[in-house]
Amino acid sequence: MDGRDGTLVETGAEAEGDLATLSVCVTCRRADAPPGDRRPGAAMLDALSGGPAPEGVRIRAVECLSACSNGCAVALSAPGRWTYVYGNLDPARDAPDILAGAAAYAATPDGLIPWRERPLVLRRNAIARVPPL
Amino acid sequence: MDGRDGTLVETGAEAEGDLATLSVCVTCRRADAPPGDRRPGAAMLDALSGGPAPEGVRIRAVECLSACSNGCAVALSAPGRWTYVYGNLDPARDAPDILAGAAAYAATPDGLIPWRERPLVLRRNAIARVPPL
Repeated sequence: MDGRDGTLVETGAEAEGDLATLSVCVTCRRADAPPGDRRPGAAMLDALSGGPAPEGVRIRAVECLSACSNGCAVALSAPGRWTYVYGNLDPARDAPDILAGAAAYAATPDGLIPWRERPLVLRRNAIARVPPL
Repeated sequence: MDGRDGTLVETGAEAEGDLATLSVCVTCRRADAPPGDRRPGAAMLDALSGGPAPEGVRIRAVECLSACSNGCAVALSAPGRWTYVYGNLDPARDAPDILAGAAAYAATPDGLIPWRERPLVLRRNAIARVPPL
């Protein structure tokens, strides 16, 4: 899927200012998902956007975060903050902790959530992080 | 290493404006490196910064890109462009292609290097990418 701009829809808070962005890969598969099944990435988007977005967070669907061997994957980014990518996520299990982590991330000035405040899934499932520019 | 701000030194073009940033994890190990050896991430920084930086690129040493199981790792980021993280890199083998890829990235408006122009290492070693905010 890499090589084209795959930003799709946005939900939650308006896409402006100092908001944190939770990017959700909707094309992700999972290694344990039957081939004919609905994309688990789409299920992840549904699980994350079924309720109100966390304060200070917008949720954005993206086609391919290039983490295909570690799907489902999501990313957290915001102006002036570290960007984090998480993988090997389960829509049925992990959505509440991802949302809690996104809220905690949005509340930081630099994107670095204190370790003891990080939901377990954000401690264990980081694939990569990149410092702000 | 995660949990602290590990931005270290900068070389190459000045850190301002529309430059592309090549972040190099200097704490990376490689699975095949003996434990007592110098960190391969430090060797990667040396290999990348031994000559002049590519046009439009600054090179930045970072402590931990949270890609520890895929070291060595580097990232490309720039204002308004996709961020890419690459892993499983070899300082002795991959530095020239990483620099060529950084130059190609810096020349794009959106961070998406046309597939046929991407050095092989950038085609094969992407760990993750995140769209611009």
